[in-house]
Amino acid sequence: MSTSQDFPTRKSSWKRFDVTVLYVFDLLGTFAFAVSGAIAAVRKKMDLYGILVLATVTAVGGGTIRDVLVGRVPPFIFRDITYFFVSITAGLLVFFFHKYVERRFKLLLIMDAIGLGTFTVIGISVGLKFDIGYFGAVFLGVMTATAGGMMRDVLQGEVPLVLQREIYASACIAGGLIFVCLDILNIVPDINVFISAAAVIAIRMISITKNWNLPKPKI
Amino acid sequence: MSTSQDFPTRKSSWKRFDVTVLYVFDLLGTFAFAVSGAIAAVRKKMDLYGILVLATVTAVGGGTIRDVLVGRVPPFIFRDITYFFVSITAGLLVFFFHKYVERRFKLLLIMDAIGLGTFTVIGISVGLKFDIGYFGAVFLGVMTATAGGMMRDVLQGEVPLVLQREIYASACIAGGLIFVCLDILNIVPDINVFISAAAVIAIRMISITKNWNLPKPKI
Amino acid sequence: MSTSQDFPTRKSSWKRFDVTVLYVFDLLGTFAFAVSGAIAAVRKKMDLYGILVLATVTAVGGGTIRDVLVGRVPPFIFRDITYFFVSITAGLLVFFFHKYVERRFKLLLIMDAIGLGTFTVIGISVGLKFDIGYFGAVFLGVMTATAGGMMRDVLQGEVPLVLQREIYASACIAGGLIFVCLDILNIVPDINVFISAAAVIAIRMISITKNWNLPKPKI
Repeated sequence: MSTSQDFPTRKSSWKRFDVTVLYVFDLLGTFAFAVSGAIAAVRKKMDLYGILVLATVTAVGGGTIRDVLVGRVPPFIFRDITYFFVSITAGLLVFFFHKYVERRFKLLLIMDAIGLGTFTVIGISVGLKFDIGYFGAVFLGVMTATAGGMMRDVLQGEVPLVLQREIYASACIAGGLIFVCLDILNIVPDINVFISAAAVIAIRMISITKNWNLPKPKI
Repeated sequence: MSTSQDFPTRKSSWKRFDVTVLYVFDLLGTFAFAVSGAIAAVRKKMDLYGILVLATVTAVGGGTIRDVLVGRVPPFIFRDITYFFVSITAGLLVFFFHKYVERRFKLLLIMDAIGLGTFTVIGISVGLKFDIGYFGAVFLGVMTATAGGMMRDVLQGEVPLVLQREIYASACIAGGLIFVCLDILNIVPDINVFISAAAVIAIRMISITKNWNLPKPKI
Repeated sequence: MSTSQDFPTRKSSWKRFDVTVLYVFDLLGTFAFAVSGAIAAVRKKMDLYGILVLATVTAVGGGTIRDVLVGRVPPFIFRDITYFFVSITAGLLVFFFHKYVERRFKLLLIMDAIGLGTFTVIGISVGLKFDIGYFGAVFLGVMTATAGGMMRDVLQGEVPLVLQREIYASACIAGGLIFVCLDILNIVPDINVFISAAAVIAIRMISITKNWNLPKPKI
């Protein structure tokens, strides 16, 4: 959820390769998030404009808030227009073929998990670059990954799903803690982002299979 | 939705005139948007404070988000206090005379359309000044014109109207494309803003008369 | 709702003392606001993550928006991590002992009023430091004190309470006007913040006892 210059910059021999991979993952996640926004809009009987707005907000909302919070303005969406086009393409696809897209449910879950992991590690990287400390960086990573979906839910008039059930933000937090531990152990960021993103994706996918949830308070 | 120094700056012999006209249009639009926010608050049985907040948020919310996104902080509302006073005046008018104001329905629609056109072209001008490209600038213009109304709807617990029906944001997009075409053809901004704003206003008014809507997906 | 360096800086012999007192008040208010967010989350049957998010958003949301609006980024939450820890501690307390916490209703109201007063005067101080004028500064103070609670209500799917009834934001406005009057009379900020915060707290507490409300429009 960010332009290529935001990715970790410590040198490594396979740098060009891994930035490209992270960028592809980032766009995959953007697409999946946009699809989830567009599907929500279809269900709420919004018109074409509403579908495109919910697609875009869900996909780029988290990264935009992240950039505003660290003072990196104009935010990434204005510096790399690709994210807009991916979001709008996803919205149009859902508009025309939403029955077909919704049936690809498992594929969407996997892509969504990829987005979750990628957005988290990019958010953490940006936080560390802007020197806000480990705690703040993990917070920023979780926000990058989840704020877009929260805005989607608020705009469709519902209480954000992420606050209610499933292991979603918790997967980001766990991945963020792994990122911090590996960084303290001096693992280079180029490798760390992949391990930590993979951890987020794995935790998210396993939690779906196992139907895990966070505890709720006893009432 | 902006201070006078934000308006297009390329020289023209009637510059002082057109900046003043745009500023008057801007304040008219601010007033109309504030009235729509205040009326929504009255319908939701909010108290005086709620009415003033919804008036202000609807009127200046879009421009404030625009300024934050391009890094122009403190935003325009803190640099030209007139927008606050217009919003609060509109809110007080609705508080005391809301039956009378609501009956001026057609006048409010026209003023709202003027606001829509004016906010769009000012947003685009700001975007181009901050060098975010045509695509980003049109996006910023549409957001300047529509984000305040979306915040109004979210605060009153409803799904934003602009996402559901009517030609509203679409009129801004059409006007934005006209702005971009004319700018590529080297029309001076001082004239361009008027043509493009007029296009937005015309499209909006015609769409109301004709009862136009955007397509919805087949379910 | 701010780091210690944000507090009024004009010299006074008891400076260290009053900054510490204001900081303690600030943290007390943060705790009370976080508790109100966490209790709302429990009532909406959110999970542990939702409780922690609503606690944090309610407690630090207003100050974060304030900092973004004046361009002080990264905002205070990333510069003094104490606010995070207080919010999360409050959230965990409510998660485990919410019945016990809710029964301390009067104490919570008093702490909430302390937060209201403290957040207001800190917001005004920040506004004056960033030179946005008295009117803008009072606006910023009220927003610092009330925006977090509004975000809490939107996230739980409800129309913000502050827009509907009770003397809440109005107490902030009254305190803000007192702050402005005393500042014009050249009262040193170190003393002014205490008088004005006390005024907010007193008005809020009296209005609860007397069951005061703002007028609503006649329909």
